Amino acid sequence: MNKPINLQSKFELFNEHWSPKVIAELNDYQFKLVKIKGQFTWHEHKETDEVFLVIEGFMGIEFKDFKVTLKEGEMIVVKKGEQHKPFAFEECKVLIIEPRGVINTGDTGGDLTSENDVWI
Amino acid sequence: MNKPINLQSKFELFNEHWSPKVIAELNDYQFKLVKIKGQFTWHEHKETDEVFLVIEGFMGIEFKDFKVTLKEGEMIVVKKGEQHKPFAFEECKVLIIEPRGVINTGDTGGDLTSENDVWI
Repeated sequence: MNKPINLQSKFELFNEHWSPKVIAELNDYQFKLVKIKGQFTWHEHKETDEVFLVIEGFMGIEFKDFKVTLKEGEMIVVKKGEQHKPFAFEECKVLIIEPRGVINTGDTGGDLTSENDVWI
Repeated sequence: MNKPINLQSKFELFNEHWSPKVIAELNDYQFKLVKIKGQFTWHEHKETDEVFLVIEGFMGIEFKDFKVTLKEGEMIVVKKGEQHKPFAFEECKVLIIEPRGVINTGDTGGDLTSENDVWI
């Protein structure tokens, strides 16, 4: 620890989409980088809020009654238990912050479920 | 909630240095923006780790045996109980992430102690 972590350098270490990689822990919270492109699956996290911070590009999140778009330098808090579906037309680089142990698809499952707690 | 938060727009809402402003909560964690310039005070947070993510500019952190510098797009985790002293030669814009209730100077006190839990 105590070493600066350069986000763009870490993004260069992987290419998969929808596969979050852990870069740091703050107590029992994790900082994860993810590259996204296309449509994710509808899901929720019953036990926790989740933060998305866009590092590069544009992304959107559909909620049940509306959708939002986010660009570089913008963040959003998705509240606990809130159904959401992230998407991006072009590849977007995102920092996710949430407690250790959160599965990317919540309990929806499916092909987009990523291995958890993978560090880079 | 569920509204995108633009970090640069939030930074435009205040000018003080060393005075963190809360912009969002993730469960019981807070996201705080701070503008820093000059030397902060030596302090520690006995109960929690703390994350600094540089949004614009350059900052440094002195630890007891070494110092680090961080630029835009770089973050660091300062571990619980670790004495540290942030500094910046020119104004630097920083996102801090830590549990609700953390005081900026720890229990060191002094003139640089900022009012806590101020939202913008």
